[in-house]
Amino acid sequence: MVSVTRRETFSASHRLYNPVFSEEQNRAVFDKCANPNGHGHNYVLEVTVTGTPDPATGYVVDLKELKRIIRAEVTDKLDHRNLNMDVEFLRNVIPTAENIAVAIWRVLESKIPSGVLSCVRLRETENNVVEYRGGQ
Amino acid sequence: MVSVTRRETFSASHRLYNPVFSEEQNRAVFDKCANPNGHGHNYVLEVTVTGTPDPATGYVVDLKELKRIIRAEVTDKLDHRNLNMDVEFLRNVIPTAENIAVAIWRVLESKIPSGVLSCVRLRETENNVVEYRGGQ
Amino acid sequence: MVSVTRRETFSASHRLYNPVFSEEQNRAVFDKCANPNGHGHNYVLEVTVTGTPDPATGYVVDLKELKRIIRAEVTDKLDHRNLNMDVEFLRNVIPTAENIAVAIWRVLESKIPSGVLSCVRLRETENNVVEYRGGQ
Amino acid sequence: MVSVTRRETFSASHRLYNPVFSEEQNRAVFDKCANPNGHGHNYVLEVTVTGTPDPATGYVVDLKELKRIIRAEVTDKLDHRNLNMDVEFLRNVIPTAENIAVAIWRVLESKIPSGVLSCVRLRETENNVVEYRGGQ
Amino acid sequence: MVSVTRRETFSASHRLYNPVFSEEQNRAVFDKCANPNGHGHNYVLEVTVTGTPDPATGYVVDLKELKRIIRAEVTDKLDHRNLNMDVEFLRNVIPTAENIAVAIWRVLESKIPSGVLSCVRLRETENNVVEYRGGQ
Amino acid sequence: MVSVTRRETFSASHRLYNPVFSEEQNRAVFDKCANPNGHGHNYVLEVTVTGTPDPATGYVVDLKELKRIIRAEVTDKLDHRNLNMDVEFLRNVIPTAENIAVAIWRVLESKIPSGVLSCVRLRETENNVVEYRGGQ
Repeated sequence: MVSVTRRETFSASHRLYNPVFSEEQNRAVFDKCANPNGHGHNYVLEVTVTGTPDPATGYVVDLKELKRIIRAEVTDKLDHRNLNMDVEFLRNVIPTAENIAVAIWRVLESKIPSGVLSCVRLRETENNVVEYRGGQ
Repeated sequence: MVSVTRRETFSASHRLYNPVFSEEQNRAVFDKCANPNGHGHNYVLEVTVTGTPDPATGYVVDLKELKRIIRAEVTDKLDHRNLNMDVEFLRNVIPTAENIAVAIWRVLESKIPSGVLSCVRLRETENNVVEYRGGQ
Repeated sequence: MVSVTRRETFSASHRLYNPVFSEEQNRAVFDKCANPNGHGHNYVLEVTVTGTPDPATGYVVDLKELKRIIRAEVTDKLDHRNLNMDVEFLRNVIPTAENIAVAIWRVLESKIPSGVLSCVRLRETENNVVEYRGGQ
Repeated sequence: MVSVTRRETFSASHRLYNPVFSEEQNRAVFDKCANPNGHGHNYVLEVTVTGTPDPATGYVVDLKELKRIIRAEVTDKLDHRNLNMDVEFLRNVIPTAENIAVAIWRVLESKIPSGVLSCVRLRETENNVVEYRGGQ
Repeated sequence: MVSVTRRETFSASHRLYNPVFSEEQNRAVFDKCANPNGHGHNYVLEVTVTGTPDPATGYVVDLKELKRIIRAEVTDKLDHRNLNMDVEFLRNVIPTAENIAVAIWRVLESKIPSGVLSCVRLRETENNVVEYRGGQ
Repeated sequence: MVSVTRRETFSASHRLYNPVFSEEQNRAVFDKCANPNGHGHNYVLEVTVTGTPDPATGYVVDLKELKRIIRAEVTDKLDHRNLNMDVEFLRNVIPTAENIAVAIWRVLESKIPSGVLSCVRLRETENNVVEYRGGQ
């Protein structure tokens, strides 16, 4: 079993805010991430697929095809967008890195052309990164 | 003459849009950067000061003090903000990287504690960076 | 279960030296790392916490609080210090990256505000990094 | 158990091509990676060894010795070489990153001086990386 | 005057070899870079354009257009290619980083849509980079 | 004229301290950099040589030779050393990045095999870098 990881990027804005919280609670929990007019990041997405290399090609997964799928299903829908307002698969999700990573997993899980999806890693800043490996 | 550069970061959202253009013109010029709900970046700011090292300290500029000034005057005002709406020194500026860099230069120019400001470099993504060295 | 990683840095000096070894043994084992007057590194520390995102916040752990704890308990005590002489929690420890990582784990293990500590990664140079995941 | 990773680099050329495929099949599967005169990469190799730090040295593995072995057994044989033509341990292997990583594992597995080999990671470009952890 | 830099990448193979030298001379001058079957690199190209931001757009140069030109004129012709054999604009050029950078300058110089070309920087490895600013 | 830059690294310890200052003055000027037992950094040194590529080789300078000189004259003398105590060419120098860069320039200036030394850049941390281009 070999793991293959493809890295893609997107630039988006968001605001962390829970509408059931008061303004004071939102400020207490999310601090400057709750600023009313939003802020943004250059996100780095790494998608890992694990499987056995095909003896005829030496590929676990065709990276050209994996790249095409990640772009069509995920990053084309997130890039240069507002994650609170513009993205169907994030509707009603507080767009923390944790929640975005889990949402990306759900979008990609059934679309991997060979091997199985084993990790979605999402870097929000050079200091903060989250990782989801499926399951509960 | 030795140059000393301090790197700071901020995360912000923006939208590229000129109100005197029609929607079609904005879309033609700014493409997805004109998306109505904005997007964002992790900006990397590098501020360079040039001068002669003080023989008693070996410093061109005290980097602790330069860092304090950059944060107080620039990055604390930009970080986790919307560059079109929230920043006094960007009022009525289309927030392209070029325009932000020139605006930061104007804020910092008179506040450098020793040496002289010689470069403001602003990285918007891993692929795009601008640099302003003052003058016309 | 989602993993969240916070990156912090510190700059410190150390010397690798076992007082029960002879000078020749120290030189044979630790080579230039045993130089008598020490040397130093810019260490990069990555602390990973794993748990279930809180449905009300979307957070596994509040990164502002995790950052505060890492700084107060670990990096403020290591930064700009001599790891052989200045750090209480490294007393009598040969400050290899392996030993520092395990010591940092022990400091942090009981202080994680939500989720559980799952990895301490310590990069000593761009070519050398260690990782401790707890247990025996 | 602590993991220790050593990073080494090499620059090599290769061509992805299966001689049992027709030209059309090679082009369909490998696209521009099948260009007849080859292309190349700066590969980044990370070799991870896992074990218990020796109480007398604080080392899982002596990184100077691990570095010497990786260079002698692997990177000196790959650096500034053509991976299709010049490397004994890649004879008859389609030099995809997956296949190179597995081949490097087989070369190194029995030569680790202390601890056990636990991961070979091979970065082919800034966007593509593979990882092999042994086993089936 | 503001400088704007666009970064693009390509992966290529090459061999350093002067046909008027003997084999011994080629080996003496170019060492392992003269290995007969070639080697390769992930090149990082940075193209800098300098000018005055257009007041109506805030752009020195439209980066989407600059990117399109760099790809069409340069990196699409170099990526996944052999620099000794496959590239019209490198015909009869020893493909050192110096010579490639000057050749790229000549290709791009007249095609910059606004501002003027002021720097071509070409990184061959993480340790080696060249820069050409035109002129003699 | 083309510029060629070689990057080398070294890990060293230092303490910023002026013996003619009182303890209070040293603490006021150098803050935690004045801690009595020192601290350290992974320094990144970039040496730039500028000249005309030799038509027979395509080289401004033979990077193998430049690397050998930088190591023999500079980094072998600094790596795994205490910059206050162990380095002949830093005797009686307060080892700020500015002063180290100027001292390295003086060591290298007359030893460049072809082209001329045009820049010494020294990165002390990911946030702080200095650059010296000779002259007064």
